[in-house]
Amino acid sequence: MPVNLTPPNPDQLLPVKGIVLGIAEAGIKKAGRKDLLVMRLGDKARVAGVFTLNRFCAAPVTLCKAHLAAAKGIRALVVNTGNANAGTGEDGMNRARSTCIEAAKLLDCDAEQVLPFSTGVILEPLPLDRIVAGLPAAVAGLKAANWFDAAQAIMTTDLVSKAVSKQITLDGATVTITGIAKGSGMIHPNMATMLGYVATDAVVSQPVLETLVRHAADRSFNCITVDGDTSTNDSFMLIATGEAGVAEIADASSAHYLALRDAVTDVARTLAQAIVRDGEGATKFMTIAVEGGAAEAECRLVAYAIAHSPLVKTAFFASDPNLGRILAAIGYAGIADLDVEKIKLYLGDVLVAEHGGRAASYQEQDGQRVMKEAEITVRVVLGRGSAAATVWTCDFSYDYVKINAEYRS
Amino acid sequence: MPVNLTPPNPDQLLPVKGIVLGIAEAGIKKAGRKDLLVMRLGDKARVAGVFTLNRFCAAPVTLCKAHLAAAKGIRALVVNTGNANAGTGEDGMNRARSTCIEAAKLLDCDAEQVLPFSTGVILEPLPLDRIVAGLPAAVAGLKAANWFDAAQAIMTTDLVSKAVSKQITLDGATVTITGIAKGSGMIHPNMATMLGYVATDAVVSQPVLETLVRHAADRSFNCITVDGDTSTNDSFMLIATGEAGVAEIADASSAHYLALRDAVTDVARTLAQAIVRDGEGATKFMTIAVEGGAAEAECRLVAYAIAHSPLVKTAFFASDPNLGRILAAIGYAGIADLDVEKIKLYLGDVLVAEHGGRAASYQEQDGQRVMKEAEITVRVVLGRGSAAATVWTCDFSYDYVKINAEYRS
Repeated sequence: MPVNLTPPNPDQLLPVKGIVLGIAEAGIKKAGRKDLLVMRLGDKARVAGVFTLNRFCAAPVTLCKAHLAAAKGIRALVVNTGNANAGTGEDGMNRARSTCIEAAKLLDCDAEQVLPFSTGVILEPLPLDRIVAGLPAAVAGLKAANWFDAAQAIMTTDLVSKAVSKQITLDGATVTITGIAKGSGMIHPNMATMLGYVATDAVVSQPVLETLVRHAADRSFNCITVDGDTSTNDSFMLIATGEAGVAEIADASSAHYLALRDAVTDVARTLAQAIVRDGEGATKFMTIAVEGGAAEAECRLVAYAIAHSPLVKTAFFASDPNLGRILAAIGYAGIADLDVEKIKLYLGDVLVAEHGGRAASYQEQDGQRVMKEAEITVRVVLGRGSAAATVWTCDFSYDYVKINAEYRS
Repeated sequence: MPVNLTPPNPDQLLPVKGIVLGIAEAGIKKAGRKDLLVMRLGDKARVAGVFTLNRFCAAPVTLCKAHLAAAKGIRALVVNTGNANAGTGEDGMNRARSTCIEAAKLLDCDAEQVLPFSTGVILEPLPLDRIVAGLPAAVAGLKAANWFDAAQAIMTTDLVSKAVSKQITLDGATVTITGIAKGSGMIHPNMATMLGYVATDAVVSQPVLETLVRHAADRSFNCITVDGDTSTNDSFMLIATGEAGVAEIADASSAHYLALRDAVTDVARTLAQAIVRDGEGATKFMTIAVEGGAAEAECRLVAYAIAHSPLVKTAFFASDPNLGRILAAIGYAGIADLDVEKIKLYLGDVLVAEHGGRAASYQEQDGQRVMKEAEITVRVVLGRGSAAATVWTCDFSYDYVKINAEYRS
């Protein structure tokens, strides 16, 4: 069951001027469910994205990068679930290209102005005919108030759809930010996997938009893990439609930029955490906060070692304060000159370990009290400097195994 | 259930001249089970070992290294289960030291001539009083034919004890090699975890023994993984008692060395594979063979990425040829300039993927046939050079979660 995560309220999802969305049931993997999304952007829109680093990246990821590089102005995004079009070679590239060509015909733009996204099973041919057959219905239904349905249309094994809106005021004008995401392991080659789309009607120059998408990704989708697997299809797109009637943000140090940056990052973080809360089989939401490092990179090493350890994750599932497993993960995280004498480990507000061993004040019942909560913070103080990093993850349960053993059946 | 692993036959475990072993029920964690082992070595014995790289290494690991460095000649090894004496700070060091002092008194040697080993729960004080109380019984029972009981005495969550013997002939004389090991995740901080002891009556110089222990470890215990966690206590010790009545091996390129090296490595590999076969919750034994790499290191990267992926491991548990998960793991293994076009992926004898996608000849039923077997080889050809590496692992089942969620209860 998702951890403190409920479906979005349709009334609280705000349209973004300059974007209309259309959904279809194309029967890509199963009949009778929304599995195709078209997002149509206005003429002023600018788009920037970050993509998986997996060398076996999917055909649509390769094509997205090429179309963004062509810089003709993106006018539409097409997303299908049910098939990842990954591990599909040259044939997969042709099918992704055909998807763009067919969408472009319907939307009266160039194929290079369309970005394709796929999520689903890897290593199986994309059912192009079904996508082509479904596109007219999606285009016919394009409207601004479709974010709630759009969030549903991109789900795969997600139990709860993920969407959020936020508004800020810039120079007296209202700027809206709405985002949707899918994923139930952050990074999960089978579901191929994490997709996130955040749109704002702010006016943002292309270079600043590129800076902003990286800033937001590094503080949201790049800070979560369910199982440590990096998907072939992970993509996070940031769209600025430019229709809010405010001045263009072209300076990444301006007050307007900072306000927009924090709001976009907040939306992205909420979506990223929703993916963890809906992590496959999750029963707990864990924040791993590492501080006192010599550099942020080593804090991330330690945080991910803890967040990836199957032993730590099964102990949290069992609400068992078997905290030696966390010390062990810190010890093998890869900091060669780590001085374990200086480390402090906290579970919630409870000091568990210091001076290389169990804290004198620690009592099992205090650890047990924290472990029974649904949201738990593990805090590690390295005693090496002032850098810090935070990672969000979930526990590891019977249901994780069940979901992943039975995914294709 | 362990995969093709049965308990050793007591009659096939051969004594090694120059070693006697004694076992006691010391009640360290639970009453009524063998949990304390003393190995007494003759005066000619030489010992070399490799230890965990975990920075939170246990007190006994630190002390073992110090006693080996003192070079006074090791005369005894003391192993307890039920408590890892890890994450125990200075107090843990004192308790490990006291164990050596008490054993040395009984065995009439110096405390620095005793190597201590512990395995069990981390972060809890070693019950020194029980160990001290148990030592006299273990010492009273010392005898050469105790290897079967010794293998049982070092078990924790192991379902099957692990021991094997082998003999070779050097210059007409028989040389015996007998080894025992414990572990049920290779590397598993909770059980803290992998211990291996291989003894031979061959006569081996100290420098050659050091070379040999590394050679054997790199081809056995360093090639296995159950869950990717590196224990605080992992230790592999090689003992040469020097009592076989053969010439000393002091040249690591001699024919005698090569014969002994291959036999010791064979024993170590059998023990290491037994740990995987008895991996927590294991239902399949998987060999991940990566070849055609530019260097062995990158082959190991790819092999471990596959072997550590929870998604790959759950698919094998389900006997589901969801092989895109393997491609994804290859893609994120960390080879920056990997050309996916050149990769070939085989499941058993079946070619699954080439040219960046599914092989034209591949049929799901062929993959399904291989996946149903209990022992499966995944072969990856990288097409970059002639280096290779092999890793052994097991699948990831409900029982893994169950065992690790309930370990302390």
